[in-house]
Amino acid sequence: MAGWSKNFGQDLTAIEITGQKLVLFRENTGSVKALEDRCPHRLLPLSMGKRIGDTIQCGYHGMTFNGSGQCVRVPGQNNTPKSAYVQTFPIEERYGVVWIWMGDPDHANPSSIFDLPEFSDSDWHTHHGGELHIKSNYLNVAENLVDPAHVSFVHPTTLGSAASENVPVHVSTNGPVISAWRWIRNSAPVGFFQKFGGFSGNVDRWHYYDLHLPSTAMIDFGSIDTALNCREEHRNRGVRIFALHFVTPVTEEYTIDYWMHLRNTAVGDEIASEQMDSMFQVAFCEDKAILEAVHEQEKRPQKRRPIRIAIDKAPSVYRKRIRDLIAAESTEDLGEPVDAVFIQHD
Amino acid sequence: MAGWSKNFGQDLTAIEITGQKLVLFRENTGSVKALEDRCPHRLLPLSMGKRIGDTIQCGYHGMTFNGSGQCVRVPGQNNTPKSAYVQTFPIEERYGVVWIWMGDPDHANPSSIFDLPEFSDSDWHTHHGGELHIKSNYLNVAENLVDPAHVSFVHPTTLGSAASENVPVHVSTNGPVISAWRWIRNSAPVGFFQKFGGFSGNVDRWHYYDLHLPSTAMIDFGSIDTALNCREEHRNRGVRIFALHFVTPVTEEYTIDYWMHLRNTAVGDEIASEQMDSMFQVAFCEDKAILEAVHEQEKRPQKRRPIRIAIDKAPSVYRKRIRDLIAAESTEDLGEPVDAVFIQHD
Amino acid sequence: MAGWSKNFGQDLTAIEITGQKLVLFRENTGSVKALEDRCPHRLLPLSMGKRIGDTIQCGYHGMTFNGSGQCVRVPGQNNTPKSAYVQTFPIEERYGVVWIWMGDPDHANPSSIFDLPEFSDSDWHTHHGGELHIKSNYLNVAENLVDPAHVSFVHPTTLGSAASENVPVHVSTNGPVISAWRWIRNSAPVGFFQKFGGFSGNVDRWHYYDLHLPSTAMIDFGSIDTALNCREEHRNRGVRIFALHFVTPVTEEYTIDYWMHLRNTAVGDEIASEQMDSMFQVAFCEDKAILEAVHEQEKRPQKRRPIRIAIDKAPSVYRKRIRDLIAAESTEDLGEPVDAVFIQHD
Repeated sequence: MAGWSKNFGQDLTAIEITGQKLVLFRENTGSVKALEDRCPHRLLPLSMGKRIGDTIQCGYHGMTFNGSGQCVRVPGQNNTPKSAYVQTFPIEERYGVVWIWMGDPDHANPSSIFDLPEFSDSDWHTHHGGELHIKSNYLNVAENLVDPAHVSFVHPTTLGSAASENVPVHVSTNGPVISAWRWIRNSAPVGFFQKFGGFSGNVDRWHYYDLHLPSTAMIDFGSIDTALNCREEHRNRGVRIFALHFVTPVTEEYTIDYWMHLRNTAVGDEIASEQMDSMFQVAFCEDKAILEAVHEQEKRPQKRRPIRIAIDKAPSVYRKRIRDLIAAESTEDLGEPVDAVFIQHD
Repeated sequence: MAGWSKNFGQDLTAIEITGQKLVLFRENTGSVKALEDRCPHRLLPLSMGKRIGDTIQCGYHGMTFNGSGQCVRVPGQNNTPKSAYVQTFPIEERYGVVWIWMGDPDHANPSSIFDLPEFSDSDWHTHHGGELHIKSNYLNVAENLVDPAHVSFVHPTTLGSAASENVPVHVSTNGPVISAWRWIRNSAPVGFFQKFGGFSGNVDRWHYYDLHLPSTAMIDFGSIDTALNCREEHRNRGVRIFALHFVTPVTEEYTIDYWMHLRNTAVGDEIASEQMDSMFQVAFCEDKAILEAVHEQEKRPQKRRPIRIAIDKAPSVYRKRIRDLIAAESTEDLGEPVDAVFIQHD
Repeated sequence: MAGWSKNFGQDLTAIEITGQKLVLFRENTGSVKALEDRCPHRLLPLSMGKRIGDTIQCGYHGMTFNGSGQCVRVPGQNNTPKSAYVQTFPIEERYGVVWIWMGDPDHANPSSIFDLPEFSDSDWHTHHGGELHIKSNYLNVAENLVDPAHVSFVHPTTLGSAASENVPVHVSTNGPVISAWRWIRNSAPVGFFQKFGGFSGNVDRWHYYDLHLPSTAMIDFGSIDTALNCREEHRNRGVRIFALHFVTPVTEEYTIDYWMHLRNTAVGDEIASEQMDSMFQVAFCEDKAILEAVHEQEKRPQKRRPIRIAIDKAPSVYRKRIRDLIAAESTEDLGEPVDAVFIQHD
């Protein structure tokens, strides 16, 4: 994810993804363009230059590039050398999100963006949340989003409680999506559903973590009156929230977790949206502290290999899938090397 | 030295020694425990977790360790894997100080802690001073404490004066302790003894620097009326102060100098203690500025070897002894590698 | 350039040039001395010591050095070892500037300092400006000073305007000085000459960039009423300003651009000097932003070589000349290695 659609307009916006500096702007036709943020002449970031129509003029010597990355002007000479271009990156806008493909442009496939029918379902409310900047490798961040076991210990006052500490986690890794889930039956509602559920007694609570490769997570969590004895396929009868995380590797050491949510309750109520944002932010900052500390430790010398325990199944499969994707990409018969999937940290 | 006894209680306290991150806490029985500060699962520092009874629960997935480093609980499974443990470090408390052994636990020998009978002598007053954080290798700091020659130039207004610039230094390196000393006879009292000696005329002043390996220094300094013609063995007749420095290598580039003092004057007078603290701190900050600048220079390229001069005898012997200790340790027939004595910087 | 003459006096002044730390002071006779800023004993910077007469006493153990770098005292011993010295560097003062030679002292040649007769011409006013600290390699800074093409894009409101964007640049690289210049005929005066020229109509404006190796630039720029149809050799009839830049490599990543100016207008008017300073500073800060961004980019991975365009002629010749100077120096038959010309960044 390059950013929210609402954040790209006439101005030149500089971002960094997988260690690549990019400049983005929205052309007058409305489509967003993403260019390598470096003039091929003296390397000045083009984002320090000036937008002129649908082109960018470099701020050092005025070389000018269009949205296809082609140089259209070199001041002081009449021709434009063949080597005067900048790389461009395919863009797709969907769900209010600007998606970018960092790999070989010929392999960009918009249909691989995951499906979210609730986005256009009027029974659901969509709220574009915010972004969390985390000084940690993106794999740590994404792995955490398919790891229900941490909730009891990291988020005891918001998303989890001690009641779930020993509840087993189900994991499915057969399909393209890695899923982990558990139901905590017949316990007091946790902080989130105390506030938004209006429950008077005990509830059944669920957490479904779906991780779409490479790093988009959709967490379906909700609660329903225990007396209703809810079955898995009837979750919509309860209070249900989808928390979406678009985990973007900025560098190997820095990740932006863009998050939004959809819900089947308080539709149209923006005050509820803001209250949820606040509660989410408390929880996400708890994750951030953990994930940054883990990253710091990973950089220190290690005398022995980390141990693996039962709850690691989904995270372990996730890391293996990423390794496989990287390996597959590196053996593709391409004219140029690609760097679409970010090198994993460990 | 891991810290002052008074600083370790119920809370989890994170420290670093010789580049190892540790978590310390005092068990309900009163004994201090020191554990590797890293969960063997996802590497989170245990000091970010929670104390539960005499155990530490990791803040990420709840793995729990006792004071012996053994894992006693893995949430989500019934067994605890053999590899689920953290390293522990032997602790000894003496003189209000928590001593720690960073090497092979089987070689820990509490009797190697130096002897300080005045600590329990009612004619003497003990004052636990403070800690000085110095961005310099610990060998620079320790060496400075067996180097009387620097006092005239670094501390001209507190501990020394120009009167001592050319007074020769005696050095003894025969025993286990490296000693350097000199007497400055028949000169005006220096700042410290102007304030605490109550002298009306000239004094004989002594500085005895005893450096116990690897890095504990005891400086015996005092003054006595010149007219009394004091002999070495009668120093107790004068005003006498022991300044103790426990030089702890945090990393190769960072050292904590914990310091305390004992004195045979102003016993029970805490106002005098505070005044001495203030004067010591002025002097120690003078050292800190020098030692940090030296460390910075040592990191820069060097075209030629530093020269050695007459006053370097004790520091040179000290550095050689440390090198010998490291070499001896590295050739010990041990099952695992040890890193008890910190690698020296140069 | 080591600094302005006015900045060196009785005090010890620490500077860094080409990665060498130096201490400078003015002897009682008036001549400036430059010594290696590191005691050969424990490496403390001598600039942290004390000036005693025309010597420096080290702040750690009192070793004392004269302006020739010789040790004249070692406290605690009577002899001074042969190895007790610090390196010295030849100094020359001219035009209110302290020039220093960082290479083999035997090759220092004051006659290679460039000639500036206007400095002592009463028709001209000299103003010692200031210093700009730039986090960029010095070659980027110096190159920028023989590159008229950037003026239109980097300084559109002060030194240039869009009128010059396509005006061709003349370059001469035959002599020892690399020159680039252009005339922009019959256009409105730019910001600088609006303020200081008093022109009512269009002007002819010139920019002459002379780059003296290794890194002193003299920029002759001015304007004259277009109606006077001025020829190149009659520039003195117009309003003419010499902007001098002494580009000093501090490290490979840090450069100080000392700048001053001379002018044939507003002679003796210090208010005009200050106003010009302010305008220059706006322009120089525009350069600083560009040059630091370029330096940051140069440190990042590069997939392809930067392209060269027509306007690069003078900068390209400049970089080649520097490479040739370095190569020539490294093959000189000298007893010791030299490092007079700073290693270029790319």
